[in-house]
Amino acid sequence: MAYTKANGNGRVFPVPAAVPGRFASEYSEVQTSRLHISLPLPSVLKNPFDVVDGPPSFTAGNPEEIAKLFPNLFGQPSAMLMPGDSSERLDKGLRIGVVLSGGQAPGGHNVISGIFDFLQRRTKGKSKLYGFRGGPIGIMKCKYVELTEDFIYPYRNQGGFDMICSGRDKIETPEQFKQAEETVRKLDLDGLVVIGGDDSNTNACLLAQNFRAKNMKTRVIGCPKTIDGDLKCKEVPASFGFDTACKLYAEMIGNVMKDARSTGKYYHFVRLMGRAASHITLECALETHPNIAIIGEEVAANKQTLKSVTGYITDIICKRSELGYNYGVILIPEGLIDFIPEVQQLIAELNEILAQDVVDKEGLWKKKLRRQSHELFEFLPEAIQEQLLLERDPHGNVQVAKIETENMLIQMVENELNERKQEYKYNGQFRGQSHFFGYEGRCGLPSNFDANYCYALGFAAGALLQSGKTGLISSVGNLAAPVEEWTVGGTALTSLMDVERRHGKFKPVIKKALVELEGAPFKKFASLRDDWALMNRYLSPGPVQFVGPTANMINQTLLLELGAQA
Amino acid sequence: MAYTKANGNGRVFPVPAAVPGRFASEYSEVQTSRLHISLPLPSVLKNPFDVVDGPPSFTAGNPEEIAKLFPNLFGQPSAMLMPGDSSERLDKGLRIGVVLSGGQAPGGHNVISGIFDFLQRRTKGKSKLYGFRGGPIGIMKCKYVELTEDFIYPYRNQGGFDMICSGRDKIETPEQFKQAEETVRKLDLDGLVVIGGDDSNTNACLLAQNFRAKNMKTRVIGCPKTIDGDLKCKEVPASFGFDTACKLYAEMIGNVMKDARSTGKYYHFVRLMGRAASHITLECALETHPNIAIIGEEVAANKQTLKSVTGYITDIICKRSELGYNYGVILIPEGLIDFIPEVQQLIAELNEILAQDVVDKEGLWKKKLRRQSHELFEFLPEAIQEQLLLERDPHGNVQVAKIETENMLIQMVENELNERKQEYKYNGQFRGQSHFFGYEGRCGLPSNFDANYCYALGFAAGALLQSGKTGLISSVGNLAAPVEEWTVGGTALTSLMDVERRHGKFKPVIKKALVELEGAPFKKFASLRDDWALMNRYLSPGPVQFVGPTANMINQTLLLELGAQA
Repeated sequence: MAYTKANGNGRVFPVPAAVPGRFASEYSEVQTSRLHISLPLPSVLKNPFDVVDGPPSFTAGNPEEIAKLFPNLFGQPSAMLMPGDSSERLDKGLRIGVVLSGGQAPGGHNVISGIFDFLQRRTKGKSKLYGFRGGPIGIMKCKYVELTEDFIYPYRNQGGFDMICSGRDKIETPEQFKQAEETVRKLDLDGLVVIGGDDSNTNACLLAQNFRAKNMKTRVIGCPKTIDGDLKCKEVPASFGFDTACKLYAEMIGNVMKDARSTGKYYHFVRLMGRAASHITLECALETHPNIAIIGEEVAANKQTLKSVTGYITDIICKRSELGYNYGVILIPEGLIDFIPEVQQLIAELNEILAQDVVDKEGLWKKKLRRQSHELFEFLPEAIQEQLLLERDPHGNVQVAKIETENMLIQMVENELNERKQEYKYNGQFRGQSHFFGYEGRCGLPSNFDANYCYALGFAAGALLQSGKTGLISSVGNLAAPVEEWTVGGTALTSLMDVERRHGKFKPVIKKALVELEGAPFKKFASLRDDWALMNRYLSPGPVQFVGPTANMINQTLLLELGAQA
Repeated sequence: MAYTKANGNGRVFPVPAAVPGRFASEYSEVQTSRLHISLPLPSVLKNPFDVVDGPPSFTAGNPEEIAKLFPNLFGQPSAMLMPGDSSERLDKGLRIGVVLSGGQAPGGHNVISGIFDFLQRRTKGKSKLYGFRGGPIGIMKCKYVELTEDFIYPYRNQGGFDMICSGRDKIETPEQFKQAEETVRKLDLDGLVVIGGDDSNTNACLLAQNFRAKNMKTRVIGCPKTIDGDLKCKEVPASFGFDTACKLYAEMIGNVMKDARSTGKYYHFVRLMGRAASHITLECALETHPNIAIIGEEVAANKQTLKSVTGYITDIICKRSELGYNYGVILIPEGLIDFIPEVQQLIAELNEILAQDVVDKEGLWKKKLRRQSHELFEFLPEAIQEQLLLERDPHGNVQVAKIETENMLIQMVENELNERKQEYKYNGQFRGQSHFFGYEGRCGLPSNFDANYCYALGFAAGALLQSGKTGLISSVGNLAAPVEEWTVGGTALTSLMDVERRHGKFKPVIKKALVELEGAPFKKFASLRDDWALMNRYLSPGPVQFVGPTANMINQTLLLELGAQA
């Protein structure tokens, strides 16, 4: 269906021919059906509101250092939108810039749509919205596009970040901060919205501090984005994109489970995104009930070794074999080996040795490894050993990220099973099948939850900027309730911060929210996993639905966390 | 949600505890929503009908040999259901067996539901339906289960083949035919429904011939199943499962396209199922508009070499780079290298050499390769060379199926691009990213099309058996029209047959329906691909919808083929 046919009300949006290929001139039926829908808003955003300050804020740690790093922002209160009338008083327009930072997450386009619609409704068309192209580099190099109704419309409720694209650059050096100042001065910006993860929001806070210290009028508001789900706190109960990505992965996992049970002869090892935290693996486990799910945070807390993780998996495979099941589904977070201290130690030693020595064929070099590392190296499958020795990054370092954890585990489990077979402890058939579900999830059509949540986040960012706030992260709460009852406000970014010591200096960081072993989602998982391991409680969530009775479900992690809070 | 809660009308279906783990006691919301729906039926099946014979049938080739192989079936007419009343006359019940054969395809459970519901409605509850467990081996070993309402209910409209599971065994030897005879005699079967692909339907026809030759009462009806889409003809316009599988793959491809465009730095090489035919790749191309899609049948027709396929891809990458696009999406059928004659030749020579000689490190063994094969071997990436030499199956043969075509092409394209860079013919950045979409698609929740189509195929099989037909394949036509207008009948299996000479004997085969280069789907693709290659016409089909305006779309291949016929 042609794009211009998509707009049911007869209005034709021109395809910007000047940017060939940057966006599609054609839409699928489902994409088209999503373009049209009108999104629900929290009721506080539908009516006049006041922005009310809360009490002074704290920090996640090291308040003295945070106070030094953010002298103009430290301790500032969070803000909350309440029914009122002050918001209607503003008669001048706002000039706002927006940037997408880091990896894609479903819903990013709706944050921008939300900012745009807020400005349209609340500043009577007198405002301007600029989109910086290709991430923070667009700010530094002043590469931008004016975001008009015609420009934004084709991206409403669509996945991807292709409206203005994203990038992974950071604004770090004094020179780069200067470039950012020049850009916001040139565009005469009242506000800047940074849509990104923990690093990008830290960066947003540094920009806010910098602009304020220089008495510039530009305010900065962050928005919580990451499919990994590791940017959250009490006031920001979820990062957007997590819901859609998990639903997409869970659909695929559910299908693989059906396949496993139907054929009865494969163990599917599924690697899922999430390098620093295992929220995706945990959520997918809660949605699909796999036989095994490895949670990195638990592995770290229990100081598990690669051998013990392998042993845990192998034990379950043996027990299942006794029950007659020579198949199963196992979920693994891609960051698993980063959670295992002994692997980190081995990598460090390897980097040291490989930088100085030749790897002799006789293996004499291995004597330089400490005993534990040597044992671990010998425990690794041959292909992984080779990979560690041969594939190096430009700095000569071992490329840990390139290790396909699921294939490594399959090989280790297979070795272990063979040993047990020799000892007559196992008599089954094992065939491993590996999967990596990654890119497919980052750019899906946003679920209703992500579409609505992002739209509200965009409105909130607009409202905070309109009321002159800076250094806050857009915060929408009460998410288990109907959209009308959602709360809207902003949380002091400094309150999420701690410092890390790097190169002799304190650097501000928003701590990644890891899976809490005392949290409700993990506890639910832990209470059920032994049953899932041996019985087959597979759930098949099916494809994301946009209409009908199943269209508005939210993810288990959020439901359980909110339930535990209530 | 607990399974017993799923049934909205208050009836509780017991979970068969005697079969632990064989099916889920829990359902996702979407699964539950699918359990309840009532499926539409072609109007001819909703009212009394007659089964009317058509003219005598022909064969796909070699009628004399087919006549010898199927003396009791050869030339029998196809059958068509027409409004009438004879079907109501039968007053005795039927005893029918059903078997799932080969790889899973979404909709299999609905064929069984259709047979069951037909028997319930048309034989007043006097019939029995038996499901053979684990495929044809279940027939040979007489392993079966009686399929009751309670047993079937949890699988209605669900993916997978886990109701009775499937298998890849064949009934081939005289001994095995004898076992099958014993089983159908023991169960006193009036009919047997074989749900499977080309091989399984050939097997069904041999069983039909065998039973009839022995004056047994058991009739045999086939049903067209395969996600690969290569079992079809004029009377059987589609094999079930193709629609759902392609929609699932297309969803993922659409997401990857969004990702490619958003980041602008990866070439995604996506391998898709389909070893013997490239229908899946073609359909996914029509649904998503990739920059490149390789169709195996075209590669074979043009006698392309691996080098020319690589060159074709590399040329487009170079042209795109000149336009500023260093990203893209490329679809590849998993059977690609089977379509390339020179690769088959190399493999044959390698098998010969490796069986006799030692592979010396100096590479002297390579002198035994013919010149063309030698050149091809040297053209292959090192990793693939090693794989060919090292990984052998139990017979010592090279394992072609294990070659990851997408990774091989990435490496070859990269090599070619590096050469062009040296010659200053290319100045871009190339980063390949590989994907294999396979298992995820075989067991998805059936689309509305597959759910409805399979249900009608099951009803048709029941109706054909009731009217005493044998050796037919269940045929439902006019599929582009609303379900009410679908035609229902059966096609003589012998009419799909040809013979192949194997071990000095003629063996009957149903020829796989390959992608026709003169067919409407390929012609549409061919007319658009140059535009897709350079411009980015990506379509994102999104997740399969079960309700709403986009729920009843059928796939492009079927639409175009039916349109061309009309």
